Amino acid sequence: MTRNFLQELLGILLAYVGKTFDRSSKVLDFHHPHQLKEGLEGFSLELPDQPENLEQILVDCRDTLKYGVKTGHPRFFNQLSSGLDVIGLAGEWLTSTANTNMFTFEISPVFILMEEIVLRKMQEKVGWAAEEGDGIFCPGGSMSNLYSLLLARYDRYPEVKTGGMAELPRLALFTSEHSHYSIRKAAAVLGIGTKNVFVVKCDERGKMIPDELESCIIRAKTSGCVPFYVNATAGTTVYGAFDPLHNIADICAKHNLWMHVDAAWGGGLLMSKRHRGKLQGIERASSVTWNPHKMMGVPLQCAALLIRKKGLLQECNQLKAEYLFQPDKQYDVSYDTGDKSIQCGRHVDIFKLWLMWKAKGSEGFSMQVNRCLENAEYLFNCLSKRADFELVCKSKVAPKIKAKMMEEGMVMIGYQPLKDKVNFFRCVFSNPATRKEDVDFLLDEITRLGCGL
Amino acid sequence: MTRNFLQELLGILLAYVGKTFDRSSKVLDFHHPHQLKEGLEGFSLELPDQPENLEQILVDCRDTLKYGVKTGHPRFFNQLSSGLDVIGLAGEWLTSTANTNMFTFEISPVFILMEEIVLRKMQEKVGWAAEEGDGIFCPGGSMSNLYSLLLARYDRYPEVKTGGMAELPRLALFTSEHSHYSIRKAAAVLGIGTKNVFVVKCDERGKMIPDELESCIIRAKTSGCVPFYVNATAGTTVYGAFDPLHNIADICAKHNLWMHVDAAWGGGLLMSKRHRGKLQGIERASSVTWNPHKMMGVPLQCAALLIRKKGLLQECNQLKAEYLFQPDKQYDVSYDTGDKSIQCGRHVDIFKLWLMWKAKGSEGFSMQVNRCLENAEYLFNCLSKRADFELVCKSKVAPKIKAKMMEEGMVMIGYQPLKDKVNFFRCVFSNPATRKEDVDFLLDEITRLGCGL
Repeated sequence: MTRNFLQELLGILLAYVGKTFDRSSKVLDFHHPHQLKEGLEGFSLELPDQPENLEQILVDCRDTLKYGVKTGHPRFFNQLSSGLDVIGLAGEWLTSTANTNMFTFEISPVFILMEEIVLRKMQEKVGWAAEEGDGIFCPGGSMSNLYSLLLARYDRYPEVKTGGMAELPRLALFTSEHSHYSIRKAAAVLGIGTKNVFVVKCDERGKMIPDELESCIIRAKTSGCVPFYVNATAGTTVYGAFDPLHNIADICAKHNLWMHVDAAWGGGLLMSKRHRGKLQGIERASSVTWNPHKMMGVPLQCAALLIRKKGLLQECNQLKAEYLFQPDKQYDVSYDTGDKSIQCGRHVDIFKLWLMWKAKGSEGFSMQVNRCLENAEYLFNCLSKRADFELVCKSKVAPKIKAKMMEEGMVMIGYQPLKDKVNFFRCVFSNPATRKEDVDFLLDEITRLGCGL
Repeated sequence: MTRNFLQELLGILLAYVGKTFDRSSKVLDFHHPHQLKEGLEGFSLELPDQPENLEQILVDCRDTLKYGVKTGHPRFFNQLSSGLDVIGLAGEWLTSTANTNMFTFEISPVFILMEEIVLRKMQEKVGWAAEEGDGIFCPGGSMSNLYSLLLARYDRYPEVKTGGMAELPRLALFTSEHSHYSIRKAAAVLGIGTKNVFVVKCDERGKMIPDELESCIIRAKTSGCVPFYVNATAGTTVYGAFDPLHNIADICAKHNLWMHVDAAWGGGLLMSKRHRGKLQGIERASSVTWNPHKMMGVPLQCAALLIRKKGLLQECNQLKAEYLFQPDKQYDVSYDTGDKSIQCGRHVDIFKLWLMWKAKGSEGFSMQVNRCLENAEYLFNCLSKRADFELVCKSKVAPKIKAKMMEEGMVMIGYQPLKDKVNFFRCVFSNPATRKEDVDFLLDEITRLGCGL
């Protein structure tokens, strides 16, 4: 029965994968929340007291996919994470079948070692020496950024762990106006407070201006704060801009600040010889956020935090729970990495990345990343040739086009305003399935939908 | 090719599932870290520059499972999460195939609604009125507990979000000596500090003593702290004890404190009419941690935080990132729940639980939970009849038995010391596959391995 059920499920999933890669299939079949809640064609979201039979369960599975969004579709440009890598998918299926947890070598011997090996490889790509480097896979880049702040604070003031912020001076940290909002969120969570996050101005390309950073640091000191941390971004969320890491590293060195690089989006470029130069200076960082589930196309979630200083992660977070981290085990307990985490149970996010790395090799990841950047270049060239695209002047145009796009469901792209700019489209290239024809399709669709307004 | 590859993978996964439920198969095939790293029978963990072929990838998958731990084996008693529910597994496979994220209705229309419906159902089980209640699925119970502290702090002092802890008095919180270490960990992360966590004494059964709680509160006030939060535990990690919730709620009401109930382990009992009485008073809590991946046997990870006060979660955590949470979308944006989270991307943990609920009904979960408690009762009765088990007097006995047990690999159980007690075994019943014969087997094995020392 298990065999038949899972075999039938496989059929449903394979049909979905097939549709995902089929350009004539819609990206989504849009319905409003109330329509889905009312139950479309017998698809009820309500939970029963009595069991449903297996046949109905399979129908529920099919319907769940039917009303979802095909994030692996070649014309899904909406999010920084996209694509549907079949090897990665296989990795996730195996991971959920193994159904285990990352806290100890005892119950995850293979995955714990894979994590160590992959982290080491990523540290090499960052450019750290063999004797440096630690790290952990986190539930998303925002959590990685939170860890970086937590570690920087502990590194400077280890007494914060027991005594709390009450024993510290007023801290200040620095991040650019184009950086991800998770830095400010983490400052709120950690009890530092968002008003102690100094927002540094960017140039017109979205890069942090080093002189502005230095002015902010001096301003913070003058106002009685103690600067301790700078977040530089390698691949901003909207522009994809790379902050000048060497200049920022110089300033951090001068003022003795922790330098974090949020390369959640841009980290993938480290895999490419052709493009890794954009991250020059990252080897000087104290910590790095790098999400393989973004430009490297690894299924969600797969997000790493890398830390240059060995031992700090364990020291900062350990509480030595006796029921998990018994010191009198029969194996080398330095492999019980769970006390490095601020979680207890931690999802196994490593296997799919390890398996994809085996299947593609470093070379394969390099080619994949290069293709994303070729698509971006192609889009840029198309736009510069076309007369039907220009800077939109009314901020309501993009949302209206997006609404029609969602309802038709053939392509998906995000939009947002930014500073003095009105709503504009952000085209993300991380989906390995995307080809030039999809870029053409996107532009034609925007034109068509826009003309109909 | 995709079809054939995934079909072959299915064969490997089905063989693993078959072995998991086969009592004659080992729970684990133990190897030391260095043995695995050296590469056993050609299984290399190292990452290549050039791609491996698909055949080798399938071999890697088989080997990964071979050297892992079968957490769904009927004789795996080692962790609070165990079992391998086939419907839940199907749910995870579908989730990874959908490969999406919980931030907006836009890209997760179905999963967002499922989360709302399941959370509402869980709130009903807790006993909250229809107009109360909010919640979020978190990456594990430790993160749920962290959220509860974060919310309690913000509820009392909303200025903490911008100003940080510097603007607050010295806070104090309370938790029992048997409670989970994540409360102290969260206090460290949030900048409250572990020394401001007052540890309340328990009775000999592991339950918090209400009078001791009240003394701690008074002591904290005398020392100049402001008490704001009490964590009560419903199902402690080692003893499985339930704190007296009504008494604790009375004290919280009297001193105006946030009452959190960590029911990560015991929450499953709310599904059972027979056993839910153990959590009497939980309806008076301000927040509740409840991990369906523990006693309800849902695959990892599946952990909820429930909050009684509507709107607080959003207020506390929102930063209104314009690229994700555009207010000018074509649908009701109150369904974009992503800004309630301290993460940005959030893994889809809801579908497997929703699907299992469909397949079992509330009744099915009730029966499953009842069976876990019947197993526990059976173990208790066995132990009281057997002369070959008694309180161990040397703390090195349990680790030695465990080491031999791991090497033989036929059964797995955890141990730990606790306070004045030396190392003892903790037998967890959450695995739906466990029968009485497995309990018998466990006891006989412990005896056999112990006699050989």
